[in-house]
Amino acid sequence: MKKEFNIAIVGLGQIGIFLYNELKRNQKTIQLLTGKKIKIVGLSARNKNKKRRYPINKKIFFKDPINMLKSKQVDILFECIGLSDGMSKRCVEFALNRKIHVITPNKALISKHGDKLSSIAENKRVNLEFEASVGGGIPILRTIKDSLATNHITKVYGILNGTCNYILSEMEKTKDNFKNVLIKAQKLGYAEPGNPKLDLNGYDALAKVKILSALAFNKRLSNSVSLMEGIENVEPKDFEITDQLNLRIKLLGITEIINNKLFERVHPCLVKKNTYIGNVGGVMNAVILEGKPVGESVLQGEGAGPEPTSSALMSDLMSILRGNIKYPFGIPNVKRNKIKSYDLNNYENSLYIRFEVKDKQGVLSQITKNLANNKISIQRLIQIPNNKNKTASIVIITHATKQINSDKCLRSLQKNKNVLKKPVLLRLFK
Amino acid sequence: MKKEFNIAIVGLGQIGIFLYNELKRNQKTIQLLTGKKIKIVGLSARNKNKKRRYPINKKIFFKDPINMLKSKQVDILFECIGLSDGMSKRCVEFALNRKIHVITPNKALISKHGDKLSSIAENKRVNLEFEASVGGGIPILRTIKDSLATNHITKVYGILNGTCNYILSEMEKTKDNFKNVLIKAQKLGYAEPGNPKLDLNGYDALAKVKILSALAFNKRLSNSVSLMEGIENVEPKDFEITDQLNLRIKLLGITEIINNKLFERVHPCLVKKNTYIGNVGGVMNAVILEGKPVGESVLQGEGAGPEPTSSALMSDLMSILRGNIKYPFGIPNVKRNKIKSYDLNNYENSLYIRFEVKDKQGVLSQITKNLANNKISIQRLIQIPNNKNKTASIVIITHATKQINSDKCLRSLQKNKNVLKKPVLLRLFK
Repeated sequence: MKKEFNIAIVGLGQIGIFLYNELKRNQKTIQLLTGKKIKIVGLSARNKNKKRRYPINKKIFFKDPINMLKSKQVDILFECIGLSDGMSKRCVEFALNRKIHVITPNKALISKHGDKLSSIAENKRVNLEFEASVGGGIPILRTIKDSLATNHITKVYGILNGTCNYILSEMEKTKDNFKNVLIKAQKLGYAEPGNPKLDLNGYDALAKVKILSALAFNKRLSNSVSLMEGIENVEPKDFEITDQLNLRIKLLGITEIINNKLFERVHPCLVKKNTYIGNVGGVMNAVILEGKPVGESVLQGEGAGPEPTSSALMSDLMSILRGNIKYPFGIPNVKRNKIKSYDLNNYENSLYIRFEVKDKQGVLSQITKNLANNKISIQRLIQIPNNKNKTASIVIITHATKQINSDKCLRSLQKNKNVLKKPVLLRLFK
Repeated sequence: MKKEFNIAIVGLGQIGIFLYNELKRNQKTIQLLTGKKIKIVGLSARNKNKKRRYPINKKIFFKDPINMLKSKQVDILFECIGLSDGMSKRCVEFALNRKIHVITPNKALISKHGDKLSSIAENKRVNLEFEASVGGGIPILRTIKDSLATNHITKVYGILNGTCNYILSEMEKTKDNFKNVLIKAQKLGYAEPGNPKLDLNGYDALAKVKILSALAFNKRLSNSVSLMEGIENVEPKDFEITDQLNLRIKLLGITEIINNKLFERVHPCLVKKNTYIGNVGGVMNAVILEGKPVGESVLQGEGAGPEPTSSALMSDLMSILRGNIKYPFGIPNVKRNKIKSYDLNNYENSLYIRFEVKDKQGVLSQITKNLANNKISIQRLIQIPNNKNKTASIVIITHATKQINSDKCLRSLQKNKNVLKKPVLLRLFK
């Protein structure tokens, strides 16, 4: 086997530049751990002269990454651009086809094109590694592929988006509203300054859920969205009420197999305060696996940011340098079957629904009648008057309710003139 | 590389027999994951006809494991006897010297003879794998060796003994005494029926701490005991008092490097109820690592029992079948330096000390005077009279106190006739 590996990095944003410095700083450690030398032979980004956290060697800078891969002898490429398509996809495909190992933290790319890319990697007998794409520094993918390889995994869930977890934790603590807390998160670097939408609406967490499903259940990546709800509509009021119920709001990503169908979902959940998942606060991520024979396994750590991400990227590098050529998704691609999606309409669980209504006679009865008509049974009802403007909040905790019924109910109640805005729906975790 | 591997198991207790069944059950999965076939060619235990959870193939049974290794072509040996020396050591040494890979959950053996055994394995270019020796099903060793390989780890701590954690959790919940809860734990299979001493006095957890130190800090295994205290002296009274202080009692194993010295310890700790570690209850194990750049990582799972243990043993098998020949302790043995032990006398932290005293004038002043003479400053004092027999409990929470001073103080107060029994000392977690 080779003794020296040439490395190139494309994308020198927060992650790429930190990784660059880590690679330089750790050359001796890498040699100690693997017996292999590394050499950084190429760097590529849009802007050569941008001010960065660490200085770069401009002699090996390329504006065009494809050009870099053509003109340098590269063994391992780090893709740190982060697009689901475009140059990210082009680079990775080009590299794999040229028998260059690829390491990427890019969940958008892997969750969308992972099947195709892994099949190229397999054919060319190189590695496609993406540990950093889920849970930042938490070694969750390697744990599934290696440590729990022979386990039968039935469910994986957790807190997969640090931005949302920070915002929810902070809203609970400060009683401040979503907008203000988001601004604070952006100032602290916990939320994207420009467009944080993909974090907040659940898209980012869902991409991670898809990767987890593929690995945990040995299936192809799913391309359907079972259920994706973000945290944008949660209000301070919801924290007050759930607090009294000894519950806490968390954005969870969940994947499980129900009757041989895959059910992937991301949505805010009400979890009990005294549970493990209820106590993962701030920007922390946590993943819980249920497997046989291992039982319940929990991994928790920092889910984002250059430091934990580069720890995961380095572990991918170690794996390649140690010569562990593996199937990117744990088993050969041909053995990974497609799996049908679970029909969301059949999904049944307890709901928290908050209606903002005009505080006048008959409104409550209109709502409860509608619920009854839609076969929704009430477990608990809390009405809180808002004396200032003659409105009230009605919070209903339902017994297990089918999605198709709650959909119907909310659609029809939204048309009711006494219901002042779109009801807030949260799901109780079970 | 070989396509078929012959496997032998020595030791058919709870772990060994469960593993045997798992190996048989998972042959197809193993082939799918690794492309390799396995064949069980030898089983060895003291008693051929003992009643076991699963039937064994008696045709491949050997009373003498060395004889088995001599007469069968074995590629991989599972050592499940569990002794720190004796036949466990003999078998493993014999196997490694014959270029047979060894997998073992035996923490007593590895923590005592791991340096020597790993150097044989390295010389013979075979694997010595022991993932199951720490934390049962929690993939903590692989995480340190692979996923966090390039991190600089500064501290590792956690709940490493499920028996103790169950007993402490149960004493807190039921207010029952140590003896009764131990009997219950034994009935449930959470504590050894015969001699549970090695779990209760901290020895088991300390063996795991030693293995963790060696891996996390890339050092030789230490052969000194810095601090080992068990849970045998904790009484229901201590749970009542700590509960009021919003604290919880946990047996923790901790290893860290202080001024280039290794400080390994196992002792009951008072942790805050609202911390992560304070909420790991029952037989669960949890390990927390502090590393750079990854930050704080947490792994939690079932720490004992055949199911999680065999999950870890199987992951070791996967690693060997995938051809990942690695240094047993992550880096070459020659690079693993010895490290001096931290001088316990200098250890400084807050203490909880409970004295049982005669309830008469002047006793409190004798105690506080002694504390002052030994430079121990009091943060909080609680005196609880026990009217029945004219005795009292005096609980003192100290400010940071040097070990040498608290030792002196307790030694001298034990001689005081008004102090009725050996004071209970717990350490506040920092």
